[in-house]
Amino acid sequence: MTSAVMRHTDMAETEHQNFLAWTSIKQTQVEQVLNQLLPSEQLTPHTLHSAMRYSALGGGKRVRALLCYAAAELCNTALATANAAAAAVELIHAYSLVHDDMPCMDDDDLRRGKPSCHKQYDEATALLVGDSLQTLAFEILSQPGLSNSGTQINMVNILAKASGTSGMAGGQAIDLSAVGKALDQSELEYMHRLKTGALIKAAVLLGAIGGSDAHIAAVSQYAERMGLAFQVVDDILDVEADSTTLGKTAGKDAENNKPTYVSILGLTAAKQHAQQLYQEALVALSPFGDQAKHLRLLADFIMQRSF
Amino acid sequence: MTSAVMRHTDMAETEHQNFLAWTSIKQTQVEQVLNQLLPSEQLTPHTLHSAMRYSALGGGKRVRALLCYAAAELCNTALATANAAAAAVELIHAYSLVHDDMPCMDDDDLRRGKPSCHKQYDEATALLVGDSLQTLAFEILSQPGLSNSGTQINMVNILAKASGTSGMAGGQAIDLSAVGKALDQSELEYMHRLKTGALIKAAVLLGAIGGSDAHIAAVSQYAERMGLAFQVVDDILDVEADSTTLGKTAGKDAENNKPTYVSILGLTAAKQHAQQLYQEALVALSPFGDQAKHLRLLADFIMQRSF
Repeated sequence: MTSAVMRHTDMAETEHQNFLAWTSIKQTQVEQVLNQLLPSEQLTPHTLHSAMRYSALGGGKRVRALLCYAAAELCNTALATANAAAAAVELIHAYSLVHDDMPCMDDDDLRRGKPSCHKQYDEATALLVGDSLQTLAFEILSQPGLSNSGTQINMVNILAKASGTSGMAGGQAIDLSAVGKALDQSELEYMHRLKTGALIKAAVLLGAIGGSDAHIAAVSQYAERMGLAFQVVDDILDVEADSTTLGKTAGKDAENNKPTYVSILGLTAAKQHAQQLYQEALVALSPFGDQAKHLRLLADFIMQRSF
Repeated sequence: MTSAVMRHTDMAETEHQNFLAWTSIKQTQVEQVLNQLLPSEQLTPHTLHSAMRYSALGGGKRVRALLCYAAAELCNTALATANAAAAAVELIHAYSLVHDDMPCMDDDDLRRGKPSCHKQYDEATALLVGDSLQTLAFEILSQPGLSNSGTQINMVNILAKASGTSGMAGGQAIDLSAVGKALDQSELEYMHRLKTGALIKAAVLLGAIGGSDAHIAAVSQYAERMGLAFQVVDDILDVEADSTTLGKTAGKDAENNKPTYVSILGLTAAKQHAQQLYQEALVALSPFGDQAKHLRLLADFIMQRSF
């Protein structure tokens, strides 16, 4: 019995080590793809290109790219397609961070442990960086010969819908208008479903673009749950972590009087809510066994950011 | 002889009246398409949707849409495709105006005779409006069933390239870095080829998406010349027109110490340069006779904004 438990523990440890190796490989992979796709600083306009690279390279856990690659593995999506999808989603995410940090939005001087783009460069450059990172995402997905045209146009449409006013930008607008207001849990959830959830779901759906309807339905369910869990964990982190660990200014939500899962549910119930979403995400993956291993371990990874 | 001249004048007058009727029809058409495609103010997030409609509807000469429709007529592009293309290009143009007017860029309070978006709403909303109008352009071009997938992905790629750092946003960045610097004519032309020219060319190429290689080569040539002419005329207008006629603050370029065709060439040589570009644009259309009538009359229209 003891040796069986030990073997189980050993296996879990080995799986964890393998997963960490996998994340490292995939983080490097999307970094290399982005490095190749982002215009060189040697090309005019130098400052804009430099600021785009500053904002999109060398930082972050690349959770969206990892989700995209894990879904691609489950669905046997071609590597070139997965690379483009992962890069495009990371570019949309990077654009949103650059614009969100600007003084007229969250006014945040720190991002991923470095000065945010408008501090390192200037506001006008940051505005153009965000605009151009968004455009580049659509340019990448529409590059000639990436996949068949039907797949590519489907990918563009998924990413556009997830980024626009029924997705990320809409969630950001609702967030802005919610400052200082009392939201209930369903209103907060609606905001986050758009603000964070839509792009996380898009990352998974783009990775799964080569999959069967059954695969897509399952990963879609998984992505919705983990998209929400991601934000609940984020709210918990904002309360529990310090700025160094977080790589951005901690405690901003409370300072800005923003409604969060923690402010509405309390810390304990917020953690329970995250756990429930996580369990529901795992259920969606259950038909696929070991094929969904990396999606499952990514769910753990998202949860373990805080507890 | 006199009656022949009179008949010629009558014919020119009739053609002019027909053209004005055509522009009016097409301006209404793109307005209706945009009105249908822009999210309703009744939908959440209300303010963002309202501000998007405020910024993209009801204003401007719709030169880019008109160029798109005229190219579509020459190339027998399907109406639904032309409508989507015209709307997408106008959305990219509208997004660029909203962001350009912001305090960190040109800081312009007036646009198309109305308060600019960040004055009517606020800066955070204007930032999201620009972001969301750009996204909507790509959503429209990627909508399921618009055309065949190959055509659609080609359209997305053309628009993305024209909007990014090798196009409009790149030109804007060069423009920013050029304030207070002495540019020569070729540097100025390079800037405008990106800043204004790329999107005008995209408007024509998207309209011509159904055309033969010969058609596309010709309209591409036409669009490059008129894209530059458009900017030369704009620089002349900035000196000669008042704010009421212009619908935006006049004299901003000189005030901001920005290099312009007028500041580099002088007013007379700038007008001659515009005329030369115009003549070259017409030469490109010469193989197509009456089929290219509206593109030809649009070239006149672009020139007649100032003289």
